Amino acid sequence: MRIVLIVAQSLDGFITKHDLPGTAWTSAADKAWFRKCLPQFDANVMGRVTYETIRPHLLSDLDPTRFRFVLTSSPARFASDAQPEILEFSAESAANIASTLEKSGRKHCAILGGTRVHDDFLQAGLVDEIWVTIEPKLFGTGTPVVKLPQDISLTLIDYQRLAASDSVLLKYRVRR
Amino acid sequence: MRIVLIVAQSLDGFITKHDLPGTAWTSAADKAWFRKCLPQFDANVMGRVTYETIRPHLLSDLDPTRFRFVLTSSPARFASDAQPEILEFSAESAANIASTLEKSGRKHCAILGGTRVHDDFLQAGLVDEIWVTIEPKLFGTGTPVVKLPQDISLTLIDYQRLAASDSVLLKYRVRR
Repeated sequence: MRIVLIVAQSLDGFITKHDLPGTAWTSAADKAWFRKCLPQFDANVMGRVTYETIRPHLLSDLDPTRFRFVLTSSPARFASDAQPEILEFSAESAANIASTLEKSGRKHCAILGGTRVHDDFLQAGLVDEIWVTIEPKLFGTGTPVVKLPQDISLTLIDYQRLAASDSVLLKYRVRR
Repeated sequence: MRIVLIVAQSLDGFITKHDLPGTAWTSAADKAWFRKCLPQFDANVMGRVTYETIRPHLLSDLDPTRFRFVLTSSPARFASDAQPEILEFSAESAANIASTLEKSGRKHCAILGGTRVHDDFLQAGLVDEIWVTIEPKLFGTGTPVVKLPQDISLTLIDYQRLAASDSVLLKYRVRR
């Protein structure tokens, strides 16, 4: 299974503006691109905060062809939302989650944040590609795209300006 | 006077790898590009740490057509290095330094780091353009490109892959 980390960040590496949660600050160009690219993935992994942010929309859009997996330290809290192989909640390791998704036959998994999920999958050596939208912003403070010390080298696969915007999409392969 | 902030950073916004000072980690492609672009500037501003890192090279390369200005809280410490309008040391504000350079007839000033100098010039609203080389690295920790809370919007002027590398050069205009 190919695992792609997809994220929009400020030029200086933040996924939130200061301490405001959510991605309301990201560009319309990135949101449009993200919506368009998501159907190519048959699995999504996200953290609890990301899940709670998109929960109403996600619950109205459940789909057996896309396995959503939410990392949370309290999976029992979300038991009433869960549906096997459609929307699951787990406190397990990144490696175990990847293994569960693979056993369920998934081929393309998108990692959708936040920081903790990025760190866990990167440190486990599970991320094949990183697709980053660099938004034309400097924040100085906020939630960082990664937080744990890493020393990861990347190979540039593609770079493009998103249509009619100041946002740049960079695609990298993670070097092993 | 046009002021351009020039910096190489990891994808996640660090100008050093973890707590190792200096830019030994940046790509050959960025170093080559930086050497090539520098002659178009008749003034450079840098902080004390940056100065001490490049001091031997800089002292062997002093040039009256390029006014180097070093921000330090202890300018007296560097009195023996100083030469009027060639290499000066100052504890003054970003605005006063910009004014001194302008009065000396300089037209194109490059801000060369580090974090404190970036923050000072950005918060004073003095930076016209930012030229960032995004190096294909994730560090998670290190010296950040900016540190103070900012809310700066940028307009993308140019984006290019640096020759035979995985580094991307992004040029922005700072929106006022």
